[in-house]
Amino acid sequence: MKKPLTLLSHITSLLRKIGIEDHRKLTHSIKVGIALVLVSLLYLLQPLYERVGDNAMWAIMTVIVVFEFTAGGTISKCLNRGMGTILGGGLGCLAALSAHEASSVGRAIAISICVFIFGAAATYSRLIPSIKKKVDYGAMIFILTFNLVAVSGFRGDDIIKLACERLSTIFMGIIISAFISLIIFPIWAGDELHLSLVSKFDKLALTIEECMKEYFRKIEEQSETQTSTNFNYYKSVLHSKAADEALANFARWEPWHGKFGFSYPWNKYLCIGELLGEFAALVLTLRECLQSHQQSPPFLKLVAKEPCEAMGTQISSLLRELGDDILNMRKFRRRESVVAKLHSTKLQLHYAMSSFGLERLANENCNVSNGYPIASFVFMLIEMIHRVEVLAKEVEELGDLAGFRFS
Amino acid sequence: MKKPLTLLSHITSLLRKIGIEDHRKLTHSIKVGIALVLVSLLYLLQPLYERVGDNAMWAIMTVIVVFEFTAGGTISKCLNRGMGTILGGGLGCLAALSAHEASSVGRAIAISICVFIFGAAATYSRLIPSIKKKVDYGAMIFILTFNLVAVSGFRGDDIIKLACERLSTIFMGIIISAFISLIIFPIWAGDELHLSLVSKFDKLALTIEECMKEYFRKIEEQSETQTSTNFNYYKSVLHSKAADEALANFARWEPWHGKFGFSYPWNKYLCIGELLGEFAALVLTLRECLQSHQQSPPFLKLVAKEPCEAMGTQISSLLRELGDDILNMRKFRRRESVVAKLHSTKLQLHYAMSSFGLERLANENCNVSNGYPIASFVFMLIEMIHRVEVLAKEVEELGDLAGFRFS
Repeated sequence: MKKPLTLLSHITSLLRKIGIEDHRKLTHSIKVGIALVLVSLLYLLQPLYERVGDNAMWAIMTVIVVFEFTAGGTISKCLNRGMGTILGGGLGCLAALSAHEASSVGRAIAISICVFIFGAAATYSRLIPSIKKKVDYGAMIFILTFNLVAVSGFRGDDIIKLACERLSTIFMGIIISAFISLIIFPIWAGDELHLSLVSKFDKLALTIEECMKEYFRKIEEQSETQTSTNFNYYKSVLHSKAADEALANFARWEPWHGKFGFSYPWNKYLCIGELLGEFAALVLTLRECLQSHQQSPPFLKLVAKEPCEAMGTQISSLLRELGDDILNMRKFRRRESVVAKLHSTKLQLHYAMSSFGLERLANENCNVSNGYPIASFVFMLIEMIHRVEVLAKEVEELGDLAGFRFS
Repeated sequence: MKKPLTLLSHITSLLRKIGIEDHRKLTHSIKVGIALVLVSLLYLLQPLYERVGDNAMWAIMTVIVVFEFTAGGTISKCLNRGMGTILGGGLGCLAALSAHEASSVGRAIAISICVFIFGAAATYSRLIPSIKKKVDYGAMIFILTFNLVAVSGFRGDDIIKLACERLSTIFMGIIISAFISLIIFPIWAGDELHLSLVSKFDKLALTIEECMKEYFRKIEEQSETQTSTNFNYYKSVLHSKAADEALANFARWEPWHGKFGFSYPWNKYLCIGELLGEFAALVLTLRECLQSHQQSPPFLKLVAKEPCEAMGTQISSLLRELGDDILNMRKFRRRESVVAKLHSTKLQLHYAMSSFGLERLANENCNVSNGYPIASFVFMLIEMIHRVEVLAKEVEELGDLAGFRFS
């Protein structure tokens, strides 16, 4: 086992040198290549071929369609393929056998009707969202197997034998795929989801910091330069829902690995991901304040600068800490202290904003509406504080559910 | 042709009566059923079976995997399947033939190496986002066909004949699928995308109206009741990006139908969809203002009530009009008049907000920070006006590109 692994890592490092960066993608491709060669041996080695014959084709097909990027994806597809084949094959045999006594025309009609009804019903079920999410592939395999077995039966072949032979080669394909996917450098959907969630915290923290810098930089420069900040980070947080759900779906199938057990609370990850998505929408509004044509006069911004920056720093460092807690699966009951700290900054901000207050506004001959932009900015920051509190609570709950340890 | 169509619509209406609502899903299922029966005839009818033999299996398989919900999806999969098969089959034949002269062991090794290299390379290409989006399925079929043809060649079968036979049955499957998908009650991806874009305008308009009602209802009731409004509309707008991209991808393959030509600007739909997504994020912030713990005192809200409501009504009716324009593919150069109208409302709002102004705030002994929430609400509305202007411009551009007519 050791030798091919060493060889594999040699090839990996070689290819990385010539420019292919993402080694996980490369690993996956090499694994698929190995699985294909292994399954092709059913054809290439005479003793194996004598046993399975042309049915080896089904093993090859199985490997190609079930081998997914993540281990969980492969397991989910293997299970779908297995269940779909067994169910479709069983029902197909029944349909073919029950029409066995009829005349040739009668049988053809009976089998056509069965094909129509089962095909249409299974296709309809594939359009129901909850089924589509989990067993779409299984339903397709069901239709395929049912149809093939039923019409093969019509041709008078020994369908029980045929079905069993195909089933056994399909299982060979499933076993090869599952083995290689799970044993050789497995890529876990759970790990992907875990790291993606952590990176979201970082991305949001980074965007908030950039927003702060940008918003108050403008006062000093007194210029209307276009923002240079890259805000695409928050977009990936905003649009990650579907990808996260797919990963969570796969992660549930994965066996115990690393720190993730069988009943690991992946749903909580989705829940936190959704909260972060809403947080990202607030960040988008911060950007809106930044890029808006409406801008508050510099003296108003200056008043708000210090407490706002303090608040931004606190929010983003708290986001990072929460992300780190999840990354290291560390429990840290910081909630009370954090809430207290945030509230004190909030009060400072309120105080600063009130103190310059009404007289100043009047003195500067400043319209109330000049205050909207900065007021919105402050409002959003305060809302973010509430959101961070909710997030901190959710992360704590995740820690309880997932058994994070106190560091 | 007429009789089965009448029968089909009879069955459809019957099933709808017994509770299956979405007739498009039902139509699709029935179409798949019909295609399966037709393709099964290759097995069931003796003269056809004599021609194709067991290769009929490939036609069945093709129908099951390429028949998608939308016509564009089916076409795209048919093309992918066709190209993948031809390319994989061709290269597979080459690989098998070029190893023909070697010894048995040499051939087995050569074929294994080919299988590994092509399999791994094609798998890697499937992980590249731009390829994944468009030809993922084609790449998979390429791997499958290449592998099967190459290893069949090793067994000494006449692979050219084998490949041609399989290819011809696969094309039968493709033709049956494409014909039924495009001719019988076609479900166009273009139509879906078109209607989905229109519905987004409506959803956002509705949510803004609900927000307005909710925000100012609270003043009158002076209560802290939980909001009852259903805000899930905007969420579907926020999270529709991936689905829209898939539809646009399919729509590009669709032939001329209804008002949609071959080079219809589907990209513009995606662009407007993205703008609407950002708009939805602003709406989320409006909701934030609504559900926030921070609320401005009623007298401040009362001052803003009338102009805010006027602005909300204008924004939502404008959104609806833009949606209607797209729905009816109608061009209407309303931009200047609309911009003027919006700006006048904006001025009214500014005026109202300024007039109660500073003295009033001082009299009521009101902290400046009490004003943040309402100021944010107003700021968001004004930002929405800018967004609506951008949207109006984009819709006008879409009208120019897609040849909308003046009504």
